[in-house]
Amino acid sequence: MESPSLPSTRPSRVVVEAVSPLVDGGAFPAKATIGEPVTVLADVFADGHDQAAAALRVRHGEGAWREIPMEALGNDRFQATFAPDALGRWQYQVVGWLNHLGTWRHGMELKLEAGVDVSVDVQIGLGLLADADADADADADGGSGDDRTILDRLRAQLAAGDDGALRRRPPHTEEAGDGYVPDQDDVEPAEHGLDAFDQLFWRTGRRAPSATLASPVNIDIDPELARFSAWYEFFPRSTIAPQQPPGTLAEAVDRLDVVAAMGFDVVYLPPVHPIGTTHRKGRNNATTPEPDDVGSPWAIGAPEGGHLAVHPDLGTVEDIDALAAACTQRGLTLAMDIAFQCTPDHPWVTEHPQWFAHRPDGTIQYAENPPKKYQDIYPLDFESEDWAALWQGLADVIRFWIGHGVTVFRVDNPHTKAFAFWEWATAHIRTDHPEVIFLAEAFTRPRVMERLAKVGFNQSYTYFTWRQSWWELRQYFEDLSTRTVDYFRPNAWPNTPDILTEQLQSGDPAMFASRALLAATLSPSWGVYGPAFELLEHLPIRPGAEEYLDSEKYQLRQWPPEHPHHLGPLLTALNGIRRQHAALAHLRTLRFHETDNEAILCYSKTDPAGAGLPILVVANLDAGQVQEATVDVDLRPLGVPYESDYAVVDQLTGQRAHWHGAHNWVRLDPALAPGHIFTVEAS
Amino acid sequence: MESPSLPSTRPSRVVVEAVSPLVDGGAFPAKATIGEPVTVLADVFADGHDQAAAALRVRHGEGAWREIPMEALGNDRFQATFAPDALGRWQYQVVGWLNHLGTWRHGMELKLEAGVDVSVDVQIGLGLLADADADADADADGGSGDDRTILDRLRAQLAAGDDGALRRRPPHTEEAGDGYVPDQDDVEPAEHGLDAFDQLFWRTGRRAPSATLASPVNIDIDPELARFSAWYEFFPRSTIAPQQPPGTLAEAVDRLDVVAAMGFDVVYLPPVHPIGTTHRKGRNNATTPEPDDVGSPWAIGAPEGGHLAVHPDLGTVEDIDALAAACTQRGLTLAMDIAFQCTPDHPWVTEHPQWFAHRPDGTIQYAENPPKKYQDIYPLDFESEDWAALWQGLADVIRFWIGHGVTVFRVDNPHTKAFAFWEWATAHIRTDHPEVIFLAEAFTRPRVMERLAKVGFNQSYTYFTWRQSWWELRQYFEDLSTRTVDYFRPNAWPNTPDILTEQLQSGDPAMFASRALLAATLSPSWGVYGPAFELLEHLPIRPGAEEYLDSEKYQLRQWPPEHPHHLGPLLTALNGIRRQHAALAHLRTLRFHETDNEAILCYSKTDPAGAGLPILVVANLDAGQVQEATVDVDLRPLGVPYESDYAVVDQLTGQRAHWHGAHNWVRLDPALAPGHIFTVEAS
Repeated sequence: MESPSLPSTRPSRVVVEAVSPLVDGGAFPAKATIGEPVTVLADVFADGHDQAAAALRVRHGEGAWREIPMEALGNDRFQATFAPDALGRWQYQVVGWLNHLGTWRHGMELKLEAGVDVSVDVQIGLGLLADADADADADADGGSGDDRTILDRLRAQLAAGDDGALRRRPPHTEEAGDGYVPDQDDVEPAEHGLDAFDQLFWRTGRRAPSATLASPVNIDIDPELARFSAWYEFFPRSTIAPQQPPGTLAEAVDRLDVVAAMGFDVVYLPPVHPIGTTHRKGRNNATTPEPDDVGSPWAIGAPEGGHLAVHPDLGTVEDIDALAAACTQRGLTLAMDIAFQCTPDHPWVTEHPQWFAHRPDGTIQYAENPPKKYQDIYPLDFESEDWAALWQGLADVIRFWIGHGVTVFRVDNPHTKAFAFWEWATAHIRTDHPEVIFLAEAFTRPRVMERLAKVGFNQSYTYFTWRQSWWELRQYFEDLSTRTVDYFRPNAWPNTPDILTEQLQSGDPAMFASRALLAATLSPSWGVYGPAFELLEHLPIRPGAEEYLDSEKYQLRQWPPEHPHHLGPLLTALNGIRRQHAALAHLRTLRFHETDNEAILCYSKTDPAGAGLPILVVANLDAGQVQEATVDVDLRPLGVPYESDYAVVDQLTGQRAHWHGAHNWVRLDPALAPGHIFTVEAS
Repeated sequence: MESPSLPSTRPSRVVVEAVSPLVDGGAFPAKATIGEPVTVLADVFADGHDQAAAALRVRHGEGAWREIPMEALGNDRFQATFAPDALGRWQYQVVGWLNHLGTWRHGMELKLEAGVDVSVDVQIGLGLLADADADADADADGGSGDDRTILDRLRAQLAAGDDGALRRRPPHTEEAGDGYVPDQDDVEPAEHGLDAFDQLFWRTGRRAPSATLASPVNIDIDPELARFSAWYEFFPRSTIAPQQPPGTLAEAVDRLDVVAAMGFDVVYLPPVHPIGTTHRKGRNNATTPEPDDVGSPWAIGAPEGGHLAVHPDLGTVEDIDALAAACTQRGLTLAMDIAFQCTPDHPWVTEHPQWFAHRPDGTIQYAENPPKKYQDIYPLDFESEDWAALWQGLADVIRFWIGHGVTVFRVDNPHTKAFAFWEWATAHIRTDHPEVIFLAEAFTRPRVMERLAKVGFNQSYTYFTWRQSWWELRQYFEDLSTRTVDYFRPNAWPNTPDILTEQLQSGDPAMFASRALLAATLSPSWGVYGPAFELLEHLPIRPGAEEYLDSEKYQLRQWPPEHPHHLGPLLTALNGIRRQHAALAHLRTLRFHETDNEAILCYSKTDPAGAGLPILVVANLDAGQVQEATVDVDLRPLGVPYESDYAVVDQLTGQRAHWHGAHNWVRLDPALAPGHIFTVEAS
């Protein structure tokens, strides 16, 4: 090892470290949404006992840096919050410096208190104030008047022997020299934890040599919908009786009102492209299809076209424009499925044969899960020599649909495509379209799902579907709300066209309700596959399987318009409560509370902006019977004083109860409701 | 934001992330010691279902990289261990690639099992084997023969229709073609979790394009003493009766045998330099000294010299050479105190006035803790314009004493000197002297103490001295053994010349014993300030203070040679047990076990190399009375099967007990022993 040479200039005595949010040491951007308060934390400190001061700098794109004072939280931790007001790539940097003026002021105060002679200290202070760069107020945020003038007057006061000058508020321009001494209540309020002198010194104190992070940290600012969304998936080729299938995209417009009325934000359609015929699967995934079998929408590509075409039975590309516009009119957003795989009939197979792997016998490699073969699907070969054209071609598909009004993409199996492709493609698309949202449909290993979130997916499907007991749910959502919260945004689905969990196979409306309540309140984003969900569709293709019998994946369905236990009213209520209470739009403030009954899960959320009421959910995990519990509410995160009275108001029923302190009793009848969604209010 | 351009070459489908050990994202080196097994962990995975393979690469300094296969632990986590065999800076890198041969082999096995036609798969495999770069074995560790020949023979077997070839062991050169089919027991043992084919494919499979970390990770390899050490501090100017003070360095040689007999490794002397007279402190820190008061050894500098001189009453610089040599002869290591501060009489004050801050009245700034003044001490000014010369001057002090045989430095208040200085100085010294060890005596805020460890201190004083209840000790050592374990090495002291905790002020031998047992077994490094400790010195300077009455810091002492409760035998036993049982030399394997009595703390350690016996400590925190408890031993980390019988053998008494399962009963009488230090042995 070479001996380290001396630095060329004297390094700062201050260090900045342990910043947050930070994803993989800065290798990937953290995520936030427009208007969401972003809290940056950092350890900033120096050797010895000198005070450190710190500034958060933020900027949008290549724009100018804006500076915000950081508040000392104790133990060398500093904090500042900003609210990004534009979409796209932001950066933050933390600057730390020695607060010589603050250190001096603190020493002066202690010495004056002890009655020690401070004449030399006043001279030291005058020197520091002379150093103070009054020009700083031009750069600083919230400068209050002419700092140079204020500094001059403060120096004059001190030089005149007015030791008490530092105990009053700084001599502002308009009042300096009037001899006015405010009483205690007249002191300026602290801002960012800094009083008026702290602020003055923060703006004007000499900072050099200051310390920063080695490089700024990236944060991608997404639309609010990336964080807070309720998704509704349906197959437009199926219909609601009495309408006969096949349905069309034009007819799908008629279904939007129902979806909007239930309070959903995103309408997600499975792939709308032409479906291949080679090795087409029949009803219930049969390998021997009947001539009238319609095939799976995920078997993309036919002579009519591939990823840039619409299935002739569904309509035309222009119908997508119309559907997207119709969604917008109703406050909905249209989401399309991006499934990058091809049937043997896809135009790319002949146009770009080099995009597929070839076997030694000259055939194209079909999808496999040995020993199973999926000969209806050709995966794209991300090890192709022609990878660059492939990447561009795939990105062009996304750009094409953006050109037709689509801004949300649910990406099918992104984990079977190269991470580097997604990292490039999502950044590439976002350069021009920061409003676009990608949902990763990857049900795979944890590190793979997390990597997809890091490389650019705004939202991710989760294991929620299989997390059923109290400890599974609690452990999973504690992890999601802490370890991965800066980059992985969960989207929780009780069901999908591929996943009918064993719990739902009972068809018990109370179990469907319980799962909906959990998804809608644990996760800021959730979704259902309907109308299967509202209509309590629950028969599996065979015992022990998680696939639906007579799945819409392989056949047209005509759904009944009504059901004695139709879940529409519950979904409407859940989405309404979500929209009304900002706490439910966030994940970071999720806290679990103890109960003495494993069938009852209790958790709370608060609004990070502090405006909305705290929400306390008490969920019954047992659809079969009445459950009672004493919940042990941790009152601190809810802002409720220890041992005080407060009201809990059930937003599902409107019922109000008066609670006291931590321990309170609940009784939940699954025949009546899946749980309580309480607001917590001063009594 | 600019749109990202396509990569110039196709990126690997594999990613490498979440490596450990890693300090602050790689900003600082991790630490380990020579011969200590260093386990590197990494997440290595690709998109899709293809297998990833991984290699750990390590090198010393700028030397050649050595490659070690990494073992898959599940969930995409890989692990490999190496034992550094040289002091100084090492680096590691993790390389990941797609294991196409492994993926193919796995698919073949599943297909053969299912009886599916594999003819095309054999062709695919032959292609992959043809790609395999048999040259790889030149670089790889543990290559077994001529890989190219083995690959050729395997291809011949497969081409001849021998599908079963992959189920036997690879056709080694010496036996290939003999048609020998080994039975199950004859399969080569797995190494690094890889069987013989895995190893062959690991060595020969095509790796490009592979993935690595953005840059290698640094690890500093220290002497074992940096991790595992027992320190004994004494003031050489004091004496043991009947010898009269002042003692000298030459006489201190006589005391080494006693220290060595008690099993200590490091003899640490407070500063040995000339002591200033200006504002000298008298006995018991009096500001009005008597003419014969000797002053504090930390008040460094007099006309006789400063940091490069020895106090005339103690001897000469050559006496340090002799003392260091005498230590070495006894298996001890001499540690000197580095206290970078000066009295007004220090030569630097006149030679380098610019190294000190000056006040507006022309005087030099003395040390302050407002409103307290320490006018006997001038701190060095790390904001000096002449900082570069100051840094060099301070480093020269350390180099000077290295030149006189000193390799261990206990650094006084390093947290009042610039972090950047320590980072440069320790790296600078280590370039030529990787054997040197620095102990940081910083009793300050957590982030500051941790930063000092990051920038180059090998060991650090801790809060142990003030951690007394079971939960304080458990919480603190759980943190030390996990969060900061890769860079912060605790050195636990029950007492120091500055710290006589309230617990010890009772003078109760059982409390002294309890604190010694805890320090010696919780922390791989520990130390005592003696003979004050063995002699149960316990009177504070005044009620509520932590300073000793009649402290050696300010006066000479003549210690009695004997004491009815002399703790020498206990210290000897503790240090003996520590040397005999490797488990106690490590921190990372520390685990706490539940007990049903808060007065009894139970914890275990194991030898990471797997050679030594597990140690289970049951410590009585209550010096006042007999305590009983049922301990709930977590048997897994001790390697004891669930619900089995095992023996625990108390290394303090030799007594053996037979335990069964997790729950066992203990009874501890503080009059007899401070606790059990059990080895855990098969019954």
